[in-house]
Amino acid sequence: MNGIFITFEGPDGSGKTTQLHLLADFLINQGYQVITTREPGGTNISNQIREIVLNPTHKELIDRTEILLYAASRAQLVHELILPSLKKGKIVLCDRYIDASIAYQAYGLGLDRKTVEQINHFASSHLQPLRTYLLNISPEVGRTRLMNRENADYNGGLDRIEQKEIEYHQKVLEGFLDLAEEQSNRIKKINANQSIETIFQMIKEDAEAIIQNNRKEG
Amino acid sequence: MNGIFITFEGPDGSGKTTQLHLLADFLINQGYQVITTREPGGTNISNQIREIVLNPTHKELIDRTEILLYAASRAQLVHELILPSLKKGKIVLCDRYIDASIAYQAYGLGLDRKTVEQINHFASSHLQPLRTYLLNISPEVGRTRLMNRENADYNGGLDRIEQKEIEYHQKVLEGFLDLAEEQSNRIKKINANQSIETIFQMIKEDAEAIIQNNRKEG
Repeated sequence: MNGIFITFEGPDGSGKTTQLHLLADFLINQGYQVITTREPGGTNISNQIREIVLNPTHKELIDRTEILLYAASRAQLVHELILPSLKKGKIVLCDRYIDASIAYQAYGLGLDRKTVEQINHFASSHLQPLRTYLLNISPEVGRTRLMNRENADYNGGLDRIEQKEIEYHQKVLEGFLDLAEEQSNRIKKINANQSIETIFQMIKEDAEAIIQNNRKEG
Repeated sequence: MNGIFITFEGPDGSGKTTQLHLLADFLINQGYQVITTREPGGTNISNQIREIVLNPTHKELIDRTEILLYAASRAQLVHELILPSLKKGKIVLCDRYIDASIAYQAYGLGLDRKTVEQINHFASSHLQPLRTYLLNISPEVGRTRLMNRENADYNGGLDRIEQKEIEYHQKVLEGFLDLAEEQSNRIKKINANQSIETIFQMIKEDAEAIIQNNRKEG
């Protein structure tokens, strides 16, 4: 497997999706084959799961169901799209992955982290990204940015997860920061209060180095 | 918790749904409060998951996704409907439950049984039925009965699981029989080649004894 799997994480409104698309455009211009995708979603079946889990009218959706639905969407995405693309040598850029489940579900919802990890290792067949960019921003700033975005799923409103209280989103950020400390070789933490151009410059240089390195090893 | 949780299992076409409704009618006539439900499904969210997992056009749905979707549907059903009903002292009759996941997914699909069990214990918060009726019939006979039913979800056709080959359904039955042997105190195996009336007589007598016993203990 010579492909490269890179994920983007961070609180809602951290700008990770913007950075993902900037990197995709740059790499495509460099001649690489690039697949961009997002979670939950990314396949026909995963998108149907996304509609269930993010629908803001689903107030009754319990935490255990949420974890299992995210994992189901991930299982389908990994095995239908990501692994086959990596086997063909492509670069896969994914907006959110397992780190998000640990941050949102173990830290945010307060569920047992080991269980969340076990379920997700099963779902993903233990596939981990080679690099993860964590865009670090306070939930308050992220929320303000979200309210101004134009391309929201729910008519400019917030989805079921985004609607949760700020205390929840603070616990989520704590989860991301703990992960970045534990796995500093994989997760690159970036101050997301900087300009889009400054952030992209850092990501671009790092990604180029990773790709060069991977080509040498492969 | 004074309620009673009873499940019905067996190959497709074994007659378990018919027996569930006969028992429900009988118990309601006796003055009990009875909830009948089925898997996957039983709540608004679980029914949306059911549509994804059983849709015969979803040929690309991978085994890991299937396990996680059944578990997600179960998590919602247990916590939204079954546990609250049991807390109110009701009798809950459910068409399929965790035994079916072990039979269909561990035995049928060949996935690790311990993993399937762990995911489902998480989904169900370890809730097990007090009694399970296993209607034992060969997959071939079950298949013939299915083809003649009138109330199928897919215009008289078979759903995604029912469409699988007979070898798969034989492994599923083997799973059910192993479970019945391992947990003979809970699972009552019934020869489903007998008449509906004969089978119902056995189930009715057994259920009455369980309910009387439970009242004494409660």
